[in-house]
Amino acid sequence: MSQQPARPTADAVVPMSPIGYVVTEYARPQQAPPQATLAYEDQGHVVLFEPYAPGLDGLAPGWYVWLLTWLHDQTEEETTPLRVVPRGWEKSGRTTGVYATRTPNRHNRIGLSLVRIRDVKENVLYFDGVDLVDGTPVLDIKPYSTTSDTPPEDD
Amino acid sequence: MSQQPARPTADAVVPMSPIGYVVTEYARPQQAPPQATLAYEDQGHVVLFEPYAPGLDGLAPGWYVWLLTWLHDQTEEETTPLRVVPRGWEKSGRTTGVYATRTPNRHNRIGLSLVRIRDVKENVLYFDGVDLVDGTPVLDIKPYSTTSDTPPEDD
Repeated sequence: MSQQPARPTADAVVPMSPIGYVVTEYARPQQAPPQATLAYEDQGHVVLFEPYAPGLDGLAPGWYVWLLTWLHDQTEEETTPLRVVPRGWEKSGRTTGVYATRTPNRHNRIGLSLVRIRDVKENVLYFDGVDLVDGTPVLDIKPYSTTSDTPPEDD
Repeated sequence: MSQQPARPTADAVVPMSPIGYVVTEYARPQQAPPQATLAYEDQGHVVLFEPYAPGLDGLAPGWYVWLLTWLHDQTEEETTPLRVVPRGWEKSGRTTGVYATRTPNRHNRIGLSLVRIRDVKENVLYFDGVDLVDGTPVLDIKPYSTTSDTPPEDD
């Protein structure tokens, strides 16, 4: 008798909650740069909720980290389309699948921002490279790793 | 009168649900390789739930994509510690903050796996580079972008 592996369904519960939030000068998505790596002159910080503060230990200025965020400032209508007009294709009106683009408008609108640490003090992480709206919930922080995060060289 | 920006609290709702799941030969986390980029000889596939299938349009063999997943196969006890012993430090017993490591054991256990597309057929995405357990819920798929996903060269 073969064992059937457990597979989730579309209504499976994903019990996520923020560990903190981002503080930036941008009030609305339209004001923020499209990606963090193009905006290293812009600075922001992450305020972690107190219980998570010990998790920042070991992070130091100069490190690159991923901020995984919840791009909250959207309507449900904005996150529903599965075919979208990618940036730069506006004139042609052509569309492509949402998973072939980096648009923030998607079912699980998780932001992936590569930022550089400027400083860490208690429960606050100061960083360069801002593409996020003020108040964006932070879900996770992961150190950037060339081994994990770039395609293998023998490709 | 200055406008106070909206900031989330630790119990803010993050309404996430899977768009599909991963099929691999690994039944338990201990059997899977530590990272996708070290296991490109291993193959797996993502089965998207039917409604999300049009989102795959435009993805093609050879593309690198991020699989954002929910690393479900953990107990709450495993995800709670804010200080952990990183891989390779087991002998010394030294610990560091969880956000300075890539351990899967974290409050919001979002997996970030860089895989290479082998094929796309209807609602199934076949890929090389497996570090995930069979049945892992998939939250998002994003194309890898050197501009967004590597530190700036002038660093």
